[in-house]
Formats: sequence, structure tokens, C-alpha cells
Amino acid sequence: MLARDFGIACGTLPTGALNAITDVPGVLVGHRTLRSGDVNTGVTAILPHGRNLYREKVRAATDVINGFGKSTGLIQINELGTIETPILLTNTFSVSACATALIRSAIDLNPDIGRETATVNPVVCECNDGALSDIQALAVTEEDARAAIADAGRSVAQGSVGAGTGMSCFGFKAGIGTSSRRLTFGGEDRHLGVLVLSNFGRAGDLVLPDGRRPTPADDSVRGENGSVIIVLATDVDLEHRQLARVTKRCAAGLARLGSFWGNGSGDIAIGFNPKAILPHDGEEAFLAQRILNEKLIDVLFQAAAEATAEAVLNSMCAAEPFVGRSGAYRPSLADWLTKRI
Amino acid sequence: MLARDFGIACGTLPTGALNAITDVPGVLVGHRTLRSGDVNTGVTAILPHGRNLYREKVRAATDVINGFGKSTGLIQINELGTIETPILLTNTFSVSACATALIRSAIDLNPDIGRETATVNPVVCECNDGALSDIQALAVTEEDARAAIADAGRSVAQGSVGAGTGMSCFGFKAGIGTSSRRLTFGGEDRHLGVLVLSNFGRAGDLVLPDGRRPTPADDSVRGENGSVIIVLATDVDLEHRQLARVTKRCAAGLARLGSFWGNGSGDIAIGFNPKAILPHDGEEAFLAQRILNEKLIDVLFQAAAEATAEAVLNSMCAAEPFVGRSGAYRPSLADWLTKRI
Amino acid sequence: MLARDFGIACGTLPTGALNAITDVPGVLVGHRTLRSGDVNTGVTAILPHGRNLYREKVRAATDVINGFGKSTGLIQINELGTIETPILLTNTFSVSACATALIRSAIDLNPDIGRETATVNPVVCECNDGALSDIQALAVTEEDARAAIADAGRSVAQGSVGAGTGMSCFGFKAGIGTSSRRLTFGGEDRHLGVLVLSNFGRAGDLVLPDGRRPTPADDSVRGENGSVIIVLATDVDLEHRQLARVTKRCAAGLARLGSFWGNGSGDIAIGFNPKAILPHDGEEAFLAQRILNEKLIDVLFQAAAEATAEAVLNSMCAAEPFVGRSGAYRPSLADWLTKRI
Amino acid sequence: MLARDFGIACGTLPTGALNAITDVPGVLVGHRTLRSGDVNTGVTAILPHGRNLYREKVRAATDVINGFGKSTGLIQINELGTIETPILLTNTFSVSACATALIRSAIDLNPDIGRETATVNPVVCECNDGALSDIQALAVTEEDARAAIADAGRSVAQGSVGAGTGMSCFGFKAGIGTSSRRLTFGGEDRHLGVLVLSNFGRAGDLVLPDGRRPTPADDSVRGENGSVIIVLATDVDLEHRQLARVTKRCAAGLARLGSFWGNGSGDIAIGFNPKAILPHDGEEAFLAQRILNEKLIDVLFQAAAEATAEAVLNSMCAAEPFVGRSGAYRPSLADWLTKRI
Repeated sequence: MLARDFGIACGTLPTGALNAITDVPGVLVGHRTLRSGDVNTGVTAILPHGRNLYREKVRAATDVINGFGKSTGLIQINELGTIETPILLTNTFSVSACATALIRSAIDLNPDIGRETATVNPVVCECNDGALSDIQALAVTEEDARAAIADAGRSVAQGSVGAGTGMSCFGFKAGIGTSSRRLTFGGEDRHLGVLVLSNFGRAGDLVLPDGRRPTPADDSVRGENGSVIIVLATDVDLEHRQLARVTKRCAAGLARLGSFWGNGSGDIAIGFNPKAILPHDGEEAFLAQRILNEKLIDVLFQAAAEATAEAVLNSMCAAEPFVGRSGAYRPSLADWLTKRI
Repeated sequence: MLARDFGIACGTLPTGALNAITDVPGVLVGHRTLRSGDVNTGVTAILPHGRNLYREKVRAATDVINGFGKSTGLIQINELGTIETPILLTNTFSVSACATALIRSAIDLNPDIGRETATVNPVVCECNDGALSDIQALAVTEEDARAAIADAGRSVAQGSVGAGTGMSCFGFKAGIGTSSRRLTFGGEDRHLGVLVLSNFGRAGDLVLPDGRRPTPADDSVRGENGSVIIVLATDVDLEHRQLARVTKRCAAGLARLGSFWGNGSGDIAIGFNPKAILPHDGEEAFLAQRILNEKLIDVLFQAAAEATAEAVLNSMCAAEPFVGRSGAYRPSLADWLTKRI
Repeated sequence: MLARDFGIACGTLPTGALNAITDVPGVLVGHRTLRSGDVNTGVTAILPHGRNLYREKVRAATDVINGFGKSTGLIQINELGTIETPILLTNTFSVSACATALIRSAIDLNPDIGRETATVNPVVCECNDGALSDIQALAVTEEDARAAIADAGRSVAQGSVGAGTGMSCFGFKAGIGTSSRRLTFGGEDRHLGVLVLSNFGRAGDLVLPDGRRPTPADDSVRGENGSVIIVLATDVDLEHRQLARVTKRCAAGLARLGSFWGNGSGDIAIGFNPKAILPHDGEEAFLAQRILNEKLIDVLFQAAAEATAEAVLNSMCAAEPFVGRSGAYRPSLADWLTKRI
Repeated sequence: MLARDFGIACGTLPTGALNAITDVPGVLVGHRTLRSGDVNTGVTAILPHGRNLYREKVRAATDVINGFGKSTGLIQINELGTIETPILLTNTFSVSACATALIRSAIDLNPDIGRETATVNPVVCECNDGALSDIQALAVTEEDARAAIADAGRSVAQGSVGAGTGMSCFGFKAGIGTSSRRLTFGGEDRHLGVLVLSNFGRAGDLVLPDGRRPTPADDSVRGENGSVIIVLATDVDLEHRQLARVTKRCAAGLARLGSFWGNGSGDIAIGFNPKAILPHDGEEAFLAQRILNEKLIDVLFQAAAEATAEAVLNSMCAAEPFVGRSGAYRPSLADWLTKRI
């Protein structure tokens, strides 16, 4: 079940065919889920395209909404405006295993890395699933990271899957969610899609687009100490500054659900364009590029806010009730909504 | 009429006694309103305290939510973390007159400025009221700026007054609005208050806390080309970094009303603490300061988001229907709400 | 006299034909100098091109090296990546007069401003010449600002002229200086030029490229409370992010002269490309743009650092000894150098 | 041999007793050096203090001078203004091993991490030693990271040691260097110390304080594709904003040596105060803190610039000539200087 199955839409723009980040041509998503004993965690991989990302980097930008987080790779994205590996999402203490897997994969494909050419910048983002998983186990392996990448396709499983396995939002079970918006520029069809790893929000703070405030039955209200990772893709031609502006609007989508970007929440957004290729090689002095007429950018801002909010709701609606580490329980927003229809 | 007169509250925290920025001890607000022919504009002054601000600067921080704006003075606030003049709000083309008035007033009080001591940093923020006022007239004078400062008191007029005279929001008349939240830290009563100059939002995008979407009767939907200035005050002890974090949360309040921080909107927030005095003079090497335990900061984030949203709604509810330059008309949100009670 | 007349070059890249910012095609510079009694101040205008800048905006970026300054217009440059007026330099308390002059000039050329289209963002930067001029006089008028613009041409007067009339550096007289570097990309000749308004540095801190440390004869050593404005122009195709990276390297040029970007110094850099036009009008969805292959950007970094250092030295070498307000005296670096040849 | 053994001092402030970062009370430094076959790498650990850093976090700030780098942990330092682990320096592809070691060490000392309390933010910075070491070997282990921490003491080995084993600067061998400055505030003795991992600068670009330009004999001039990590410590009471301002001045020290913060160089500075403790536990609402009178901050700016430049020169003077991976050779700056005395 997704938000629209309960009659809940975020905003007014039309969705893409899949209502998923993979509506943006080229983008692929894969998961590796780990559930065993007190371990409820995993890895989710977002591939801007299916080719050699180190050779064909893509235009990218980031927004640190609240920096209580341990994501890696963002500094170089800001400076150079490119991504050169898949983006991996996982739990806080598995960033290293995933980063090492990305480094080794890049070397396998590009043996000149660190020898005849530069090194490689692994991009790994994280949320803390310690409430539902034994995060001290450091359970994710390099092999798990590779499995998530190998699993990548256009169909996106949502809810308690991959990196989302042990995540919670506003006191409900959450995890992976996605949504997209369809746009038209100069007569051409384009898309903006978002995928979230959602693990933020105090129980009681969630506000639905219709003003309802779902609250979990048991009142285990806790502080805001989760996080959310937002990955945005668009095939609209934007220079880095414009892409950064669009990426910043993901935060508005969170706020519309009742978030105030809490102190303990590492809220990070990364945006990229899978079709804006910056080649690693090549000696031409100048590259041709198209950029959007800035006067038309508002619809992208709107799409980023809408798709982020809807992706979070989808991550919750798609998740079943969950019993995690030491019996900790998270109900399903889908159940709450079902009772109220 | 204010939002609460229509049963609309933003969030759950209690308001201060005045539900105004002047609930924060020391803060004063004054207006100068200009209405004559096609001129509908003015000046609003916020005084962090009523003493000599150059000698007793106050801790301050800013957040540029969207930088399509012409406010002045922000760069030095960011670097030094202080404000040393009143904050003036006005229309886009009257920033210079207001800045000059602040410079002259500071020199009058402190004849050593620019001679034996440093210069002074005037803080003036603006929105474009060109839709309802003849902004090309550059109608505001230095005398108007001084009159707004002289008018300062604890009672805050709202709606079409002062700098808000010619402003609009979401297709409705808007202007000046304020709201506050009462807080408790370590057994001590504290406040966070917000005052907005509101002039943003496309008609049709406004969402009330209960999910309703008020739209003006006539469909003169226009692009997002306004702006909003948010002035936040709190007497909670915060270091500059913490105050910047709190100030950033004003943007969440805008987003909750349906804003996506539009391209053409200069959305700027300034936060200050009237009780955190940084003296201009004095030769001690170190100053004593208290800072909040960071674990307790979430309630300030929440208060900033709530008070910002409510201040915007108050700026709209307090405004009568308005006929401005060349007959341009803006209806009142209060009328829309009255019909639906 | 300029630095090279004393055998002093900064770095190794060749200069342009004029060794001036006006080596970058299109750029024009003009001055208005005010000397009367204790008033020693003025205005310097840099025109990215000689056409209607509001209609044909240019790509621009900024770097706030140290934000103890009152420049205006920077926030919008950062957000939108464009400049739409001439850049005016003046003393701290004349920013408002210059900004108003820019607004009125823009309205004269574009009567739709603030009525049928957006407002305009005046860019005015400043240093405090209070040590040598009566800054409390607010002596600069709108007419002076217009005169500086009207004076604009390819020949650049240096030293105690225009906004530089009352400025000092490292205890010596300073003011306006310029320098350029010639570059080649893909077989095409390009330039990077810098113009500075220099008013920074403690007496005794100056270090020449050969290691010598010129110190004024009288030991009126004073704190770092000046400022420096650096305007950089290049006709190399860069996206906004790249231009911001290049502009940031101006600070390295200051440091090489012994500056540590002092607390009281408002050190601001603005970079632009006069050939990268972003039209105000036009409805095409996308604009074509060339961007530099990032691998080739180092020579621009080097040029920015070298030209900034040399422009500062030129501002000092070109200035005669000066007696200013209340008899305050600043010797000439040219005299110091002449005695040591 | 260090720079002062060749009569080279950077600036005019006096050094601390050790001329090392460990002149700042509490700071400890340790190394683990790996030299085997084509592997020439290692780990350097800087401990802000010798107690439990997670329980007693220290005030910290960062500056990303040029973000072509893969350091981890900076985002949270910026947001919260604290460091809660030792700072580890290593090669680019060993960040993960070091981060995991920091996580496990923190869990060992604080079993509540990720269970009853928050997670932990490992701080690891890196340079690319691929020119002299087989970086593809991912040779550094968690055990190596622990060994560097266990080695920590007040005496700091410099040159080709620890993380500096395979690093180069301006075509010469470089690595680890340190320097300090002694300061006095309000009659109290304080220090500012810097430790660098230096691996930046094109051969031929180095400029000594006396204007000489040492160039390696063989002309294997290569592009700027190294990096430099600068760790600054001071026991002067500063709020986060002030510490960030001081930390930013490290970049001036690099520029004075001829650097322009090259495109391919990940130039990162981290500053901390070992005596400014922010406790993890404790429920008081407010913490008492002293902050420096901003008027006195210039000497800290000067100290940061001077100590950074001298630390880089020390890293070079202390390093012997070196033969690394595949016979790659780097001469010693000490030899160049010895021949010219």
C-alpha cells in the first residue's frame, strides 16, 4: 500500500508512470536486506546510471538540512559538482563497509585509480536504526553492499527493505519510500524523482496533507533522534547552482509533514542528473551544457517538496508493523489509515 | 482579527501573553505608514532593546532561505554574530534611505563612529510591494525611518501597516504579523517571538493547519515573486551557532503553509537575543556567557517553526481588503475564513 | 609607477596588454574623485559591459573572505549567479547614495522595473576611509555615482583616485590598483583581470614577493581595521560553481602579501564574466552554455592569486604620499622602493 | 632538522616550548608507520585530550579550503561544534578502516552507544599517497589505527612518519609537521598549535619566507593533485563562530608558501579547544562558557597563519629523501637548504 491507495496525494503535480525515482531515465535502485535475530538492517543502492560512473560522472549537489549525521562523500560533491560512484544508504556504523565496497568496485572497473589517475569519492549516507536493530553488530559487509548494487533495477521495493529495514518515522515503521513528478519544459517530457531513507520525527508530530495527525496507539513518544536521507534525481538540464537550489527544497517537503529538522536528526539531501555527464577523461578545453531558464525553476522547487513529502509517506504506508531488537515495536501507518477510511 | 480568532493555531506550544515578538523582554516595534495616491508603503522598526545598540550590541544570526533579495547588513551579522542598530523593514527601493537614517542616528548617539572607532552596520530588510504601491517613487525618507523608530513600543499593530502596507501573500492582502511561544528552561520562563513582513506565495498554494486551501475568488494567480522577512527574538541563552540553528527553522514554518521558498522570493530570517549583550567598549580579555544544553534545543526549533507560520497567518488575518496602485485588489483572508465558519 | 617599474612581479604568468582588468574584453572602469577640506573620498565604477546590464545580466559569484563589511547586493549574486548593474566602490557610509543612483539609472533604462517586471539588485562595495577622510560627511552624492559610471573607459587610473582616494594599506597610501593575466584555452586567448580597492593590513606586515618587508618610517602601527574589495573579471567560460572557486583564490593573493584577513577588515571578492550573458527576457526553456574542463582550472586559480597580489601592490606604488583628515599622513611605497633600488 | 635549524621562521610570534601542537595542554599525538614493499603509508592520531572523548566532547570547527577530498566527520562538527573521537589521519583509501576502529573503540569505552544513547561520529582525514605508496592495497588495518592512538604522547615525530610516510609537497618529500605559537590573554599564557599532513603543491611553486623558490633538481613537475590536512588546537576560550574564524586562517599560511589551493588538492582544516568541554551527559539547562573579546582575535589569526606555514616547512625539513612505489623519488628540502647555507 502506498499513500495514494489511501487517497493521500502531496501537492498537485502529476506523478511519473512509476511514481518512483526510476521514472527519471537511467536511474536504478537495488536493495540488500538483513534480518537475523536482533539485526534488522541492510543496504540500498541508487545508481545514477548503469554504466561506469567513474568514467561518466554525473552532475550533483547536496543540502545539509541538519548535520547531525555521518554521511561521507558530500564535501567533494559540493566542490566539484559530481558523483562518481553509486550512492549507498545504510545504517550509521556500516558506512565504512559500504565505502570500502565502492572503492574496490571502482578499482575493479578502473585499475588506473590511485595509480595513473586520481582516487575515487565513495558516497554513503546513513540513518541510525539502533532502536530496532543491533547496530553495534556492524552487520553489513562489503558483500552486502555489492549485492545491493547487483540488485539494481527500475522497480523499487518500499517500506522495510534494504537500508530501510530497521527505520522508523513519527513513531510508525518507516524505511524506503519513493515518489516522482512529471514535468514539461520546452515541449519535452522530464521528471523529478525522490527516494528517501526515512527515520525521523517525534511521535505525535506527523501532519497529513489533510490536516490529520496520526499518532501511534502506545505513547512511547521519544525525542527526535533519527535522520532522513533524501536522494533526488532529475533529467532537467541545470547547472550546479540550480541543482543545489532544487535539492534544498526537499527540506520543505519534510516540514510539511510536521518536521522541524530536529536536533538529533541527520537530514541530508543529494540531488543529481543522470543525463548530465561530466567525463573523467577527455582533453577538450570546454564542454557544452544546457541550463534551465531560471524563470521556469519554480515547478522544480514544487516538485522537490511534493515528491519528498510523498516519498516519506510511501515509506510508512508500505511498511508492515514491525518487532525489532529486544521486542521494540513500531505500528504501521497503513493500519492507522485503514481504520479511519 | 488574528488567526486564533478563527480557531486556527499553529502547533502545540503555548503563546506568550501578547502572542507577539514583544513578549521577549526588551524588544520594541514601531511603524511608519505611507498611504497617498499610488504610494502604499512604509517602514517597520524592530529594536532589540531601547538603549544604545552600538554600545550594547546583541547576539544575532541570519538564514538566507532564498537569496533573491536586497537586504543589507547580513554579511557582518554572520561574521561577528552581532547587531548594532535597530532592524528596519521597508520596500525594496527604500533600503538606502533607511540605511542612511540608521547611520546618521548611530553617529548622533556615538560621535566617535568613523573617527575614533569603527563604522556602523545598518540592518535593513525589504520586500517588493510594487504590485500595490508605486515603488519607483522611492517614497520613504530618512524622516520616515526615524519616525518608525520613534514609534517603537510593546504593542504591535499588524496587517497593512508600516512596511507591510502594500504587501500580499498567496493572493490575499498581507503585511506585518507576529506571534510568540512561551518556554521553560531550568525552571525559568523564556520566550521566542517572531515578526514577519510577508509578501510571498502563489495564489492557491496556501494550506491551513487543518488542510484547507484558501484561494482568492478572482483567479489572478501570479508567480512567486514576493519575499518574506522573518525577525526572530529569544531570550534563551544561545551561542551564535545555536542561534543560527534556531533561526534556520523559521523556513519550516513557511513550508508548512505551502511555500516552497519560490525562486523570485527573497526569504530572509534574522534571529537575535536582546539579553545577550556584546559590549562595543571594554578591554577584558574574556566575556562570560551561558549557552543552552544542546539536548534541549528541539523546543526552540519547534517554537521557531510554529511562531513563523502563525505570524504569517496573523499578517493576513489582520489585513483588510485592499485596493492599491492602479486599482489592483487583494481580498482579505479574514473574509474568506468568516464565510466558512 | 607600478610594481613592475620596481622590478616586482607577482608570480609567473604573463600579463595582458594593459595589465589591467580592462584586458578582459568589454570591461570598463571609471572614477569620480572628491577632494575638498577633510573630505578625501570618491566612487569607482566597474562596468562588466557597456550595454544594458539589466537586460543582459552577466554570470557572477562572490567570496566573503572576512565579513566585517557593509557591501550590498552579494546575497542575490550568490543565489542567482548574476550581476545586473555596474559595480560601484565607495566609502562605507556612501553605499546608500551609490545604491540609489544604480536603482534610478536602471529604472531610467528599464521603465518596467518594479512595475511589470522584477526590481533591481544594486551592487555596491565599500572600505572605511575614515582615517584620511571625513566619513561622517556622507559626501558622495548620487550625481557622483553617475559621474563615475559616465567616466568609464578602458584606461584605468590607479592609486589615490575614485573610491581609493582616502585608502591605506600596511601603513602606506593605497587606493585603486589593477593587474591581469593572459591565458590560453583550446588555442583561444583569454584573460583574467583584477581591480582592488585596497585599505587593509597592519603596518609592518607587508611582505614583498622577494621577502622584503617594507615598513613606514613613522611607527604609527595600527590595528587591522581597513578592508579590501576585489573585483575579478574573466572571459573564460565557467559555470557559477567554477567562477566561485576562482573568485575564492583572490584571498590567496592577499595572504601572500602578509595579510591574515584581519578581524576588522571587510575582505570581499566579486567575480564575473562579461561574455556570459543571462538575458532578463526570453522564454526559451534552456540556454546553451560552455563550461571549462575542470582539469584546466588551476591556471585560473593561479592567475587570480597572482593578479590580486599585484593589483594591491600597484594600488600602493601608484599612490603619492598623502596628507588627509586632520593632517593624518601616509607615505608612498614607491618612495620606499625608490630608496632601495 | 626543522625549518628553524635553517634559520627559517614563519612570522614574528614566539613559539611554544616544543614548537608543536602538543604545547597546547592536553593534546597528544601518535603514529603508526607502514613500510613494506610498495606500501609506504600509515596512521597519525591526534587526541584532543587523553580521557573519554565521547563523554567529554571538545569544542571544534572546520574549514573546507578546497573540497576535493574524502575526509569524514566534518558535517557533524559544523552542526554541533564538537569532536567526540580522536582525529585520525591516513591515506585516502584507509578512511574506512580508521573510522571503524574509532567506532569500535568508542563502543568499548561507552557500551551505551547506539543502544541507550546516540551513535558516534568518527573523524578521519586523508591525503592521497598513491604516488609513493600502493594505495590500492588498502594496507591500513583497524589494528594500525588503534596502534597510532596507543602511541599518543607529547613528543611529535615529524617528516616521513605515520600518515605522512608517503606524502610529498612542492616536489619534495613531506609528511607530518607541527609548529606552535605562544600567546598571552589577560595575563594568562595560552597556545595555538598546528599539525599538518602535507601532500600538496606543484614543484616550482614553493616560496620561502625570504623569497627563495626551492625547486627539485629533476623536473618531474606535476599537477596539484595532493591535499593537505591541517589540525589546529588552542586553549584560548572561543565560541564556535570564533574558532571557525581562527581555523579559516590556516589557509593563509598555505598561500604564503605559494599554494593557490589547487583544484586536485583536498585542503581541510579542523580546529579544536581541548579545554572547552561539552559533556555528553548532564541535564543542566545551561552551561557556563567564556568567549574571547573579539577585538583581541587578530593575534590568533596571525598565529594560525604562521604556525600552518611553519608546520608545512617542518614536515619537509624533517623528511629524508625517499624512494617509494615503483622507484618514484622525492628529494629532501633539507638537502636543498643545506647546499645553500
